[in-house]
Amino acid sequence: VANFASDNNSGVCPEVMAALAQEAGRFGPAYGDDEPSARLTATLAELFEHDVQVLPVATGTAANSLCLAATNPVWGGVVCHALAHIQVDECAAPTVIGGGLTLHPVEADHGRLTPEAVEGFLGSRRDSGVHTVPITGLSLTQVTEAGTRYSADEVAALAEVAHAHDMVVHLDGARFANAVAAGTDSPAELTWRAGVDVMSLGATKGGALGAEAVVVFTDCLRDDPARLRKRVGHLLSKQRLASAQFEGWLAGGAWLRHARHANALAERLGQGLARLGVPLAHPVQANMAFALLGASQHERAVAAGMHYYVEDGGGGRVEARLVTSWSSTQADVDALLDAVGGA
Amino acid sequence: VANFASDNNSGVCPEVMAALAQEAGRFGPAYGDDEPSARLTATLAELFEHDVQVLPVATGTAANSLCLAATNPVWGGVVCHALAHIQVDECAAPTVIGGGLTLHPVEADHGRLTPEAVEGFLGSRRDSGVHTVPITGLSLTQVTEAGTRYSADEVAALAEVAHAHDMVVHLDGARFANAVAAGTDSPAELTWRAGVDVMSLGATKGGALGAEAVVVFTDCLRDDPARLRKRVGHLLSKQRLASAQFEGWLAGGAWLRHARHANALAERLGQGLARLGVPLAHPVQANMAFALLGASQHERAVAAGMHYYVEDGGGGRVEARLVTSWSSTQADVDALLDAVGGA
Amino acid sequence: VANFASDNNSGVCPEVMAALAQEAGRFGPAYGDDEPSARLTATLAELFEHDVQVLPVATGTAANSLCLAATNPVWGGVVCHALAHIQVDECAAPTVIGGGLTLHPVEADHGRLTPEAVEGFLGSRRDSGVHTVPITGLSLTQVTEAGTRYSADEVAALAEVAHAHDMVVHLDGARFANAVAAGTDSPAELTWRAGVDVMSLGATKGGALGAEAVVVFTDCLRDDPARLRKRVGHLLSKQRLASAQFEGWLAGGAWLRHARHANALAERLGQGLARLGVPLAHPVQANMAFALLGASQHERAVAAGMHYYVEDGGGGRVEARLVTSWSSTQADVDALLDAVGGA
Amino acid sequence: VANFASDNNSGVCPEVMAALAQEAGRFGPAYGDDEPSARLTATLAELFEHDVQVLPVATGTAANSLCLAATNPVWGGVVCHALAHIQVDECAAPTVIGGGLTLHPVEADHGRLTPEAVEGFLGSRRDSGVHTVPITGLSLTQVTEAGTRYSADEVAALAEVAHAHDMVVHLDGARFANAVAAGTDSPAELTWRAGVDVMSLGATKGGALGAEAVVVFTDCLRDDPARLRKRVGHLLSKQRLASAQFEGWLAGGAWLRHARHANALAERLGQGLARLGVPLAHPVQANMAFALLGASQHERAVAAGMHYYVEDGGGGRVEARLVTSWSSTQADVDALLDAVGGA
Repeated sequence: VANFASDNNSGVCPEVMAALAQEAGRFGPAYGDDEPSARLTATLAELFEHDVQVLPVATGTAANSLCLAATNPVWGGVVCHALAHIQVDECAAPTVIGGGLTLHPVEADHGRLTPEAVEGFLGSRRDSGVHTVPITGLSLTQVTEAGTRYSADEVAALAEVAHAHDMVVHLDGARFANAVAAGTDSPAELTWRAGVDVMSLGATKGGALGAEAVVVFTDCLRDDPARLRKRVGHLLSKQRLASAQFEGWLAGGAWLRHARHANALAERLGQGLARLGVPLAHPVQANMAFALLGASQHERAVAAGMHYYVEDGGGGRVEARLVTSWSSTQADVDALLDAVGGA
Repeated sequence: VANFASDNNSGVCPEVMAALAQEAGRFGPAYGDDEPSARLTATLAELFEHDVQVLPVATGTAANSLCLAATNPVWGGVVCHALAHIQVDECAAPTVIGGGLTLHPVEADHGRLTPEAVEGFLGSRRDSGVHTVPITGLSLTQVTEAGTRYSADEVAALAEVAHAHDMVVHLDGARFANAVAAGTDSPAELTWRAGVDVMSLGATKGGALGAEAVVVFTDCLRDDPARLRKRVGHLLSKQRLASAQFEGWLAGGAWLRHARHANALAERLGQGLARLGVPLAHPVQANMAFALLGASQHERAVAAGMHYYVEDGGGGRVEARLVTSWSSTQADVDALLDAVGGA
Repeated sequence: VANFASDNNSGVCPEVMAALAQEAGRFGPAYGDDEPSARLTATLAELFEHDVQVLPVATGTAANSLCLAATNPVWGGVVCHALAHIQVDECAAPTVIGGGLTLHPVEADHGRLTPEAVEGFLGSRRDSGVHTVPITGLSLTQVTEAGTRYSADEVAALAEVAHAHDMVVHLDGARFANAVAAGTDSPAELTWRAGVDVMSLGATKGGALGAEAVVVFTDCLRDDPARLRKRVGHLLSKQRLASAQFEGWLAGGAWLRHARHANALAERLGQGLARLGVPLAHPVQANMAFALLGASQHERAVAAGMHYYVEDGGGGRVEARLVTSWSSTQADVDALLDAVGGA
Repeated sequence: VANFASDNNSGVCPEVMAALAQEAGRFGPAYGDDEPSARLTATLAELFEHDVQVLPVATGTAANSLCLAATNPVWGGVVCHALAHIQVDECAAPTVIGGGLTLHPVEADHGRLTPEAVEGFLGSRRDSGVHTVPITGLSLTQVTEAGTRYSADEVAALAEVAHAHDMVVHLDGARFANAVAAGTDSPAELTWRAGVDVMSLGATKGGALGAEAVVVFTDCLRDDPARLRKRVGHLLSKQRLASAQFEGWLAGGAWLRHARHANALAERLGQGLARLGVPLAHPVQANMAFALLGASQHERAVAAGMHYYVEDGGGGRVEARLVTSWSSTQADVDALLDAVGGA
């Protein structure tokens, strides 16, 4: 039995639990006026090599929606990939929290927007003044929904297009840890140095209980994210415990260690599948593999207790989304490969 | 040094930490399709002696807003006490999450609405058809913002008025534990048996990290709370860890034990203040005391490291809101009394 | 038979019909890019002796809501009189169009806010940072819902309080014509010179078919009213015909002529009622009289075919709201007085 | 000089002006409780051979948005053509007025959705429970943005798909008159008999000053359109004058006479363009022709004072949208053809 359904099916990593346990034993001010939150801001400023404004929240949808709401007009539009979590999996929360803000999906291969795709979309829209929603933002995702990554240069090229059109650049970093761990670009290089204005930094998938943060890099705010956060009920009374989760996760590089572990297992998965002749829908670049399993391969895997999400893979195949996490094991991976391989 | 600022300045109680630690080590389905959440619903059904629908969230503001949004039309109005948390402290979140729902504050002594006050308000409103917001809900709070309680009979009398006007009855139970612990009415008697349709059940102030729940008792829903919750980003991916917090808190009556402890300390505070001749703004009925301190009493308390919120108490006095929690100690209380008393 | 229910029960005055008929026979650009709209802006700039931005809409609720939405943050609050149309008669439209903006009613005699009442309200509110809705606007009404007026000095005193608290000042001028016609203050003196930042200028009650306008005087905009107008469906395709209504109404002072006529009839009504010993709930200062009729007086008036709205006037009396308009006649007034007097 | 920019650039037809003039001279109840509004409901019931609920408003965007808001959940999604007015030209008003409702554009030839296109879209969406916006509505447009029509059978085939998926069917009938006039299907056959649940019936483009209506045919309402209309400021105080416009427009078949006139001129345009060898982007089926003009043809037309909107037609051509109206003349059409033809 092994769980590849999602990294959010994992539990809480020991480093986060230890930090929680430590802070849990203390009194502390509510609603963010606390030491762990102040330290978190300082830690992230150091990590990103840039001044930041940080607002912890409990969910990635909240972080994404608040990032967009604080940086786009209510009558604006945000371009994102057609598979983006904000477009597909958040039940219009960015629109609701953004006061009517709309999302504008664009197709591109392997979950990754390209400057050409964004330019093409922008060029195809008629500007009819107040009749038309103006495109005011671009939202990218690291790691993408297809398990792929953007290099710092790729982010920069996209941000350049966005800024040339007066669009703010948001990064949905629910799996930012995996993106950093998988490449050689630093957190700064993957974000503000490449033109990212505001990001959602996710720790939940990486081992936290429920800790995400709005991280503001630039002078991109149109509205006060602290006010916006409160009025949708996302200011945590014991925020210091969310900040403490981040602290435990970040301290000593635990976040990257866990992400590297998950990435390595996905790589092992990808290579194992390749050896078995199983085609992949997307290249494995972080902690996800999309395997196009034959019907009997899928049946054997399910029978062996393997959990994962599937879509129709075409040609009689099942597209299995296989996600590894900090708590996945090599044994899990090998068990999956064995089941698929019919061992 | 002692902290009476709010029970949400407390940490996490050992029972909750233990339950968290146990669930944290496992994989489990995300987004509520998990065993701890299923068990929580069963546990609350047993506790309340009634079928319930339960939706855990991370904040009380979310729980309150979702309760109201799911049971009132977007063009409805909700009557609440002028001091109610939803009216005073949630930056209009019930309006935002309720899609334009408005709140209608009513004054009454000691934070407690009365049937007369509610009837008086309803009678004073002109009904002009579509021009007027119809009053569609009543929101009560246990324990009130003034530290007082409603008995089951008082809730029933208010709910009777509400239902006679086709209004749904919501209970903000951020401190429901303290209300139950302080009296002899059962959870069922204080809620659906008295006419409460939907409640926000809070564990955070009582010892959880961040665990509140929408609890639906009756056939009062106008919209699907699960959809509403998701679209404002309040569906937790690791919801099982919020449910686990509730389980640890409820198991073996820890919630009532902690609440009784806090209530007893507030009682001790109230009696001590009375002995010192300090008048109280409201009767002490749960875990809060509102002391009208003289200037030098306040100064001595502050100098002794006592933390609490103040408002102008009139007549040269300071109204000090003193809140006790599961983690307050008798020593804290005695230190405060000593400081006020000039010992 | 005579209609005193409301000035919006009147038809369309000949000057407006003539202007409509003239513009109706032409082609012209849609959505505001037309000559009548450009001329209207110039006409209002001259009338108000100040540069203005003008956005015609079809309803007063739209004008009020857009004024507030464009000048207050979505998390802001607007103080208004407890009887204000925006508070009582618009079914929360300012909240809906304002994205969650809340209204904060204040009581004061005869429908008229005072600096003391506003200061008192502001002083009574605790500022709890993001938890509290900050008061960001003040909305006044000319003529008030009680049929009274503010002098330019009174507006200025209120605006001074507002601006001292960084609040924007809005004027609901649904009956601005009656206010101007009843006094000696100029349109400029009653608005921007007294500190009004933005107003809703109403022509509908004064004789138009349906023509109201957002009029912006100062650098008070937080958001683009043109974008906000479009996204709630209030940009008229044939806007030039709304502008033409305004032109016909304003040209040659028709608006003031009609308002003076209505005011004079209300004055006649008030004096006649006084002669009959009928007490008035509010002083008659424009085109409304609030008569506290005895039961038999009311019965006789109704029997004589007099239409008006009533509320309970206390002490066995009926409070009859009697509104005169451009199309009311002296015969209407005398018929009412005869009926009440039992002639 | 001739104006083909849009039929909303036309003025007000004599029949509407006459009806307005008649009603303008009377007093009448405000806010819809009036005789013309009651008569309008009866007239439309007769016209559509079905009981109807009718809510007049001033703009097509308001009518469309209210139709969708009243029949879809706030967390729902509405499928429409990628060129639909609600998608392209209303600055997200359906989303704003619909409380977060989202639109889901689908491509299909000549502005006309097909059952296959809708089924294909629906089949391509993953249903992830609360994470996914469920598709709850289908919006069609008569006449489409490409100037084409749906036959009653085509509407029925689309509605069948929609209803099979529990979707409500909305018709944007801004140019419904032109669609009826151009074919042999009756109003009933084109609407409820074919499965349309609710429609926006537009008179503005057809000769009114500003009169559109929400027309509800079936038991499709999820919320009260009258409440929804008021809270976005779209209840007209002098609604009887909007109803009167409809009455003048409908009486004696004026609406169809005007529509037939406009359609015939578009047909003449299309045939003339064909004779000149100008290709058309879409078939001419109502009152619009989309001419792919060569650069010099376009220059000559502009030089001759012809007004129309253009887009890039590809291959060096200009796509000219040519719209005829009740007030267009044969001389206008011939002048355009002469200019294009270089006569």
